[in-house]
Amino acid sequence: MARINEHYAKLPASYLFPEIGRRVRAYQAAHPDASVIRLGIGDVTEPLAPAIVEAMHAAVDEMGKRETFRGYGPEQGYDFLIEAIREHDYAARGIAIAADEIFVSDGSKCDSGNIQEIFALAARVAVTDPVYPVYVDSNVMAGRTGPVGADGRYAGLTYLVGNEANGFQPDPPGGPPGEPPGEPPGEPPGEPVDVVYLCSPNNPTGTVATRAQLERWVAWAKASDAVILFDAAYEGYIADPALPHSIFEIEGARDCAIELRSFSKRAGFTGVRCAFMVVPKTVTGTAPDGKRVALHALWSRRHSTKFNGASYVVQRGAAAAYAPAGLAQTREQIAFYMENARLLREGLGAAGFTVFGGVHAPYLWLRTQDGATSWQFFDRLLSEVQIVGTPGAGFGPAGEGYFRLSAFNSRANIDEAIARIRRAFRAR
Amino acid sequence: MARINEHYAKLPASYLFPEIGRRVRAYQAAHPDASVIRLGIGDVTEPLAPAIVEAMHAAVDEMGKRETFRGYGPEQGYDFLIEAIREHDYAARGIAIAADEIFVSDGSKCDSGNIQEIFALAARVAVTDPVYPVYVDSNVMAGRTGPVGADGRYAGLTYLVGNEANGFQPDPPGGPPGEPPGEPPGEPPGEPVDVVYLCSPNNPTGTVATRAQLERWVAWAKASDAVILFDAAYEGYIADPALPHSIFEIEGARDCAIELRSFSKRAGFTGVRCAFMVVPKTVTGTAPDGKRVALHALWSRRHSTKFNGASYVVQRGAAAAYAPAGLAQTREQIAFYMENARLLREGLGAAGFTVFGGVHAPYLWLRTQDGATSWQFFDRLLSEVQIVGTPGAGFGPAGEGYFRLSAFNSRANIDEAIARIRRAFRAR
Repeated sequence: MARINEHYAKLPASYLFPEIGRRVRAYQAAHPDASVIRLGIGDVTEPLAPAIVEAMHAAVDEMGKRETFRGYGPEQGYDFLIEAIREHDYAARGIAIAADEIFVSDGSKCDSGNIQEIFALAARVAVTDPVYPVYVDSNVMAGRTGPVGADGRYAGLTYLVGNEANGFQPDPPGGPPGEPPGEPPGEPPGEPVDVVYLCSPNNPTGTVATRAQLERWVAWAKASDAVILFDAAYEGYIADPALPHSIFEIEGARDCAIELRSFSKRAGFTGVRCAFMVVPKTVTGTAPDGKRVALHALWSRRHSTKFNGASYVVQRGAAAAYAPAGLAQTREQIAFYMENARLLREGLGAAGFTVFGGVHAPYLWLRTQDGATSWQFFDRLLSEVQIVGTPGAGFGPAGEGYFRLSAFNSRANIDEAIARIRRAFRAR
Repeated sequence: MARINEHYAKLPASYLFPEIGRRVRAYQAAHPDASVIRLGIGDVTEPLAPAIVEAMHAAVDEMGKRETFRGYGPEQGYDFLIEAIREHDYAARGIAIAADEIFVSDGSKCDSGNIQEIFALAARVAVTDPVYPVYVDSNVMAGRTGPVGADGRYAGLTYLVGNEANGFQPDPPGGPPGEPPGEPPGEPPGEPVDVVYLCSPNNPTGTVATRAQLERWVAWAKASDAVILFDAAYEGYIADPALPHSIFEIEGARDCAIELRSFSKRAGFTGVRCAFMVVPKTVTGTAPDGKRVALHALWSRRHSTKFNGASYVVQRGAAAAYAPAGLAQTREQIAFYMENARLLREGLGAAGFTVFGGVHAPYLWLRTQDGATSWQFFDRLLSEVQIVGTPGAGFGPAGEGYFRLSAFNSRANIDEAIARIRRAFRAR
């Protein structure tokens, strides 16, 4: 009898993006002439930068010649890419990361889904709410939670609510410093957190953590002996030089944090597939016998046992995003998307919306109007102005009443989307 | 307190291939002029076929133009590749597989490491011995076994021994048909198996399962309500048209088997990264309440939650391996490697070795001489004739006394390796 993983049954039958796809297809079938503008899924639209294209062509040619062909590469990634990462993403910001602390992979979705494997099944996991669903779902599938409750929360998971009062950047468990320690609502008091997922610039809210906020997180993690999984997939979109791009810019983070980075949004790699994770050798967890174990050793074992390296051609493309031409070209793409975001912010504001994010991230997070639920707002936006966004409720219970729009599109579509929204919402 | 996954501590400190690398580096440091021939890790050496190179260049160009750029692709893979797989690997052999039963990935190592996630932690897993280590290690890491015993076996895992008597193709648990049902040695009697990993053509032994053998496996799986995970990464090397390439050539396999395939050896993709898995919708497992659940739904959820599709450029390359030119060119590469294997087989035989495999697989499995352990033989081969192979013991306790050589190398190196072996072993 092949017994199955029973935890999958706790997941909702329909996942967020397929449900959006279903509703859009139904609408288009009923309205074949409608010109639908997609600002839902956070997918880039600009072509690969010329320097990256050139590097990938060169790599394909190498693979076609006996003298330069490459078979299995190093599982952690090629030195040429790891050195570029070390130099540009870390050393240039005064952060010392060793080459073997960097693990190149085929994507941050994989990394953020897989990293939970190195923690105990009994480990208590905290997530912000709203949140990127992979953090939650991968822990549900592993069996780290109970069933989902009527409030949309999984038993056994700690939710840290982001709201307008805290600018969608919740404080660590225990509340802001100086206040009496509180407990996240709905959780048994005193349940200590082992691991927390943070994402800044944030998906879905587009908000960004300040240095002071990250300092509070690192202080909390060190005081509680917890680990921070810091997802910085959108760091390339930070405009203010005072804002940290890496958790490792914070003193002490090397002892309590792992960082995830991606080329998907930084270099338009959503269809090319490359990312990396930084696991300092100084971050430790606790074995059942109380012994401290380096998470680096665990992840290294996981990575080399279940992964065989990212594609050589892809790694050459990623490295080109750090060379002068590639850097300039990808920065120009990011500036283009962020100008989209600025236009969207202004247009939505003029249409009477309260908007968050969109300054240091390609996402705008808006409050729905007239008390609509986020799915009601989705349906209204689709049927009235033929714009697809993502309902906030899809990112967790605290996302209800909010809506995510992405700035990834052509300027013409962004202009048209703004015009439609301003026409439809102006009078209200 | 960040509690870690305690099961990682059950794994041996040193993994097989890193240990080989360490010994080779030490030898080379001591003998800088030695010309070492590597027949250890099963990595291809021929460059990518011209048709594949051409397709990848075209795809890179598409990615560089706004009109043809592709962002996130379908998580299961692009239709152009899935249709090529359906037609050439299955329909051409009379096997009906639906498009949505095929899941394209970035490699079979990932697939074979990840597939265990959809089964219960309590599920009993059987492996052949010797075995590709990923099947075992990924189950150890998940917590499905106890510690390793003095016999090199993990408690709670069922080992099916391959040996010279059964041609390294062990029968299903319960023994060959017609004989009184036995139990695998060392296991508590009557422990039923939920899931078995099979690999044919086999890594490491290079042997291949016959149709009759696979029929026995399918009959056993159906009778025991077990699931077969069939790894056919080397099917492209099968020479005899009477031998099955797919488990789905066996009547009834659609109800009890999942198949893994890879472009790594079939098209030289070890550094390019592409594979796929076939999960028929008719294979089911059992939930705790006794309900039957399609494994397809579980894997589909796993794949879409933790994976974001294989690289577009890579998928175009894989599809080109099915077009007439790509097919002819990759078949020629396989023929080249198999001629290497034939030469190695003959040369080893002439040097007095008893050799298995190497006819329908790029691996040769030889009995060591003079009762040497497989690591003793490794050291002797390295120091006396400067040839690197893989000690059989690295693949499980039943691999002790055996040694794997791979046929992936230039003809000049294969000829030189044979000459050295014949010189060193002729007189004994």
